[in-house]
Amino acid sequence: MIQVLKIGGNLIDDEVLLQISLEAFHALKGNKVLIHGGGKFASALSEKLGLSAHLVDGRRITDEETLDVVTMTYAGLVNKKIVARLQSLGCSALGLCGADANLIRAVRRPVQRIDYGHVGDLKENSVDVSVLNFFFKKGFIPILCSLTHDGQGGLLNTNADTIASVVAVALAADDEVALHYAFEKRGVLRDPSDRDSFFSQIDEGDFRNLKQQKIITEGMIPKLDNGFKALRAGVSRVTVGRFESLTDLKNTTSLCL
Amino acid sequence: MIQVLKIGGNLIDDEVLLQISLEAFHALKGNKVLIHGGGKFASALSEKLGLSAHLVDGRRITDEETLDVVTMTYAGLVNKKIVARLQSLGCSALGLCGADANLIRAVRRPVQRIDYGHVGDLKENSVDVSVLNFFFKKGFIPILCSLTHDGQGGLLNTNADTIASVVAVALAADDEVALHYAFEKRGVLRDPSDRDSFFSQIDEGDFRNLKQQKIITEGMIPKLDNGFKALRAGVSRVTVGRFESLTDLKNTTSLCL
Repeated sequence: MIQVLKIGGNLIDDEVLLQISLEAFHALKGNKVLIHGGGKFASALSEKLGLSAHLVDGRRITDEETLDVVTMTYAGLVNKKIVARLQSLGCSALGLCGADANLIRAVRRPVQRIDYGHVGDLKENSVDVSVLNFFFKKGFIPILCSLTHDGQGGLLNTNADTIASVVAVALAADDEVALHYAFEKRGVLRDPSDRDSFFSQIDEGDFRNLKQQKIITEGMIPKLDNGFKALRAGVSRVTVGRFESLTDLKNTTSLCL
Repeated sequence: MIQVLKIGGNLIDDEVLLQISLEAFHALKGNKVLIHGGGKFASALSEKLGLSAHLVDGRRITDEETLDVVTMTYAGLVNKKIVARLQSLGCSALGLCGADANLIRAVRRPVQRIDYGHVGDLKENSVDVSVLNFFFKKGFIPILCSLTHDGQGGLLNTNADTIASVVAVALAADDEVALHYAFEKRGVLRDPSDRDSFFSQIDEGDFRNLKQQKIITEGMIPKLDNGFKALRAGVSRVTVGRFESLTDLKNTTSLCL
């Protein structure tokens, strides 16, 4: 069983939660991949540099300067901090973006009504699984930031939830794979004000209803969209919840078809 | 023959020179490693962030904030830009810092008269050559930024000229290795005002005399110090000059013992 784990922004921003998460990650047996974005570091750096968020119709655009900020924070600051910490725990982490070893090749999002700028969309064959399997052979643990490339010299800002799903699906062609979206809550909450009210299981019908009732909103939607997509494409297990809960799967939300 | 190439800051800062350098690097046959720092990107970012250079006795100190800037620019912006460009040329570049795969473990410089902050010194056994050889097996070309780690979770700013020398020496235990310090000039100049006046060869005696006569100064000194050290430790060939000159070694400065 290969475990693919995406770590949410709130875990990256908080020093204590990050350390707990990395220790929980290190404790997992077998081959595994960690996927992360930049938490609040990218917006904090943009703000310090006086860059204003470039929005079109309320959607954030990755212009040239924002791409530089994303590259510095995701692939630089956050990725290398995680790698150095995991090394100190005895985990032979190997930090990567999608350009490294041509691991994830994306397509710049086509301009329709909005030009999103340097943003990458993934296709089914975007991930070169042979690269991950090669690293596993030597016991290296890939730590992937949410940055891919177009094969023509350009880096592309790419959604980390989607990368996690596509990586899990690609690995599932040859292995049993579990995908976990780790964040600061115990799972998908029935009642957002009650942190212990998580669903132990939801299916796609529940998901549709909960979206309509506005119980599932915002950042949870892409996680679940990507999670169900992964399940349908052959990933054995998809869960959403705390990192620590991986050793006690009853204590988290499982998706089912 | 494995080629270890260090690319100087002036080549990184200039878009045209960088492209020419990467094409020349890609054209080299066989296994190779590229080593780089951050050019002017780190000081430009520090300046934009309003960080003042922290100097003690005229020596630059890597404080916490400077380490973050170095991590963002060396391991993020510059490393991933080089990797994406090389990928577009068909070179399967793999960007790394010394923490990745525990490739280069350094020791934080001991505090004597000055505390240099988060600066790493390398020892003879700092480089894990088996990691590089493992990557070579799959045709991956390591692109190393000048950042190492202490094994305790800390990243360390480390001189790129020294990394190049230590990597070359480590590889020379099992293979024939050539080390090249690439920069914008044709080699070590006899007359700094005449760009065609390069020495075709210098030995350690020449180096001492030229330093005394102030003909060799500043940034050239660590290159040559590290270059002679590498030669004495078994590296077959050490040269200093343009990247393109690697296909025409008469057109560069060779070090000899």
